[in-house]
Amino acid sequence: MSVDLHVIGTGLIGTSIGLAVADAWDVLLSDRSPSAVDVAVARGAGRPWDGREKARLVVVAVPPAALRATLESAQRADLATTYSHVSSVQSRLQPQVQPSGLQWSTLCGGHPLAGKERSGPHAAAADLFVGRPWVLCPSAHTTQTAVREVHRLVLACGGQPLTATAEEHDAAVALVSHLPQVAASAVAALLVRTSPSGGLAPAGLAGPGLQDTTRIAASNPELWLDVLTQNAAHVAPLVQALAADLAQLAQALAETAQGGGPAAREVVLDLLRRGNAGRSLVPFKPGGADRDLVLLSVSISDHPGQLAAVLNSAASAAVNVEDVRLEHLPGRPRGVVALLVRSQDLPAAGAALRADGWLVEPAP
Amino acid sequence: MSVDLHVIGTGLIGTSIGLAVADAWDVLLSDRSPSAVDVAVARGAGRPWDGREKARLVVVAVPPAALRATLESAQRADLATTYSHVSSVQSRLQPQVQPSGLQWSTLCGGHPLAGKERSGPHAAAADLFVGRPWVLCPSAHTTQTAVREVHRLVLACGGQPLTATAEEHDAAVALVSHLPQVAASAVAALLVRTSPSGGLAPAGLAGPGLQDTTRIAASNPELWLDVLTQNAAHVAPLVQALAADLAQLAQALAETAQGGGPAAREVVLDLLRRGNAGRSLVPFKPGGADRDLVLLSVSISDHPGQLAAVLNSAASAAVNVEDVRLEHLPGRPRGVVALLVRSQDLPAAGAALRADGWLVEPAP
Repeated sequence: MSVDLHVIGTGLIGTSIGLAVADAWDVLLSDRSPSAVDVAVARGAGRPWDGREKARLVVVAVPPAALRATLESAQRADLATTYSHVSSVQSRLQPQVQPSGLQWSTLCGGHPLAGKERSGPHAAAADLFVGRPWVLCPSAHTTQTAVREVHRLVLACGGQPLTATAEEHDAAVALVSHLPQVAASAVAALLVRTSPSGGLAPAGLAGPGLQDTTRIAASNPELWLDVLTQNAAHVAPLVQALAADLAQLAQALAETAQGGGPAAREVVLDLLRRGNAGRSLVPFKPGGADRDLVLLSVSISDHPGQLAAVLNSAASAAVNVEDVRLEHLPGRPRGVVALLVRSQDLPAAGAALRADGWLVEPAP
Repeated sequence: MSVDLHVIGTGLIGTSIGLAVADAWDVLLSDRSPSAVDVAVARGAGRPWDGREKARLVVVAVPPAALRATLESAQRADLATTYSHVSSVQSRLQPQVQPSGLQWSTLCGGHPLAGKERSGPHAAAADLFVGRPWVLCPSAHTTQTAVREVHRLVLACGGQPLTATAEEHDAAVALVSHLPQVAASAVAALLVRTSPSGGLAPAGLAGPGLQDTTRIAASNPELWLDVLTQNAAHVAPLVQALAADLAQLAQALAETAQGGGPAAREVVLDLLRRGNAGRSLVPFKPGGADRDLVLLSVSISDHPGQLAAVLNSAASAAVNVEDVRLEHLPGRPRGVVALLVRSQDLPAAGAALRADGWLVEPAP
């Protein structure tokens, strides 16, 4: 009898898959780095592959550059009856693009929309995929048996299986993942090119807006080079559209600087309003549940235990805090804790916090 | 004997100035909205202006569109010996731009780099300016007496006074505040224009990267229209440079999509690397103290009290948490709390959390 699953590549994603199913499934682990396998095994993600055992399903979770060769070699060695991968770009591994070399009927690509800024088996987590979309992209040649096999893995990991063509998938992630990366990098890049104005170092004036807007500019350049070039056909037109919007805005601003009239102001206002509309589409939580979430702000001082005390007050009212954000600006010794709670919990949370002496907004 | 300070405009900034100094200074408050004055007075920011009393210093904290007329009318009525304002754009109120109407010798503009996403006297806080830069922009005609008077206010509010020309100031905020706003709005705007691909709604695939990159796209369009057009001379060339960088990147990606070679890849990699370099200039805290701060990740489940319990463990070790971030992705019932702590506190914090049974990274 064959083993349930063989994960090739025990990095963040591969090890997390093993951790997610290892309680119920028999999982083999392999990696070109033996120490990565050791860590994954030690964390309970499965057992080391002996170099011969076959499995029902192989999932290849290796870097983009090694993906195709690893899949080909796994299929040549006949390691499984179904094959999948977890690539963030799907259309490059489709029969119309890569006509030979792979056995398409047994291959169903997939992409779990989950990750962390850190990588490797140490960062893996059994619940990395719980509640997250996992897009399956079968080719025209993929059998229903193969699709069902991968679907089963997604459910076992707690993910939400979606099915799309590779083109649809790559167009969507270009918009919600690859475009923001490019924009963040480009804004941060201008901080380097632009020299300080007089004695004023601009970065010293930075507040939370710049912090948030450029956070993902710290991502790994080599990894993102692979992602962006692999998905270049979808990312390029979006970046071009962004550049065109910005060039139009720059022109309008240049006109207003020269005393330009209402038409130029309308261009600026239109972009800001469309920004409002676009931002309102970004969910706090999937399924449009945002409407049910409200912010509660609590003033605290910057001493050990203040944040814990606020959250203790919320917990004492059995209020589940959906998200938390410390809003203190750099260098300020006091701050505001913004708690995101369900609107139905707002009265109880506010009352509990006020009863414990906290300054809370909104006021009752 | 004249009163110390008269704050005209009791919104977020004006009321916060009153709250910051009212313990030690005699503060008058006025606003075209009597109810805004009532709230500011009730919060302890000062006492209502009787329509006649004079003050040593008038600070005008009204919206940009009303600023110049309010300053002129205050000077005509001879309400103080020194005048200041808190405009986020400084060069529009300088003698070379507005040659007449204002008395320049008694006027020293200033800009506290502090704010919140919410506005109005309810959102005001006595410590809004503590540790934050506050840039003074005297004109060539401003007397040293006037500069000293405003400098004294900044120190009384706990701010860090910096002095710059209005041009230097406006160039710096164009880069660290106005450019990120434009970029966030432009990225979010594309979410509207781009229709869903097939059955896949792109926003449903959104993760924390899109969340952070577009957060400030929710800002007030009318307010930002004023800021961007007033500072258009500085913002326009930066937006143009951003558009040019993005157009070049789009071109390079389009070339790689057509099988382009190493030169196109180098353009993409260069932007990503410059993004890394620029991001490293953005401080967690001013003064480059970031190097001393490290992240500690703790796995939690999504139940009331979990976050509080983690912070209790940290507090029990007398560790001050500098920042906290709940890293759970939308829809995931468990998550990771990332705590930002001083590196010297890392061993104590890690030990305390582990002793209380938490799964903590980095491992010891």
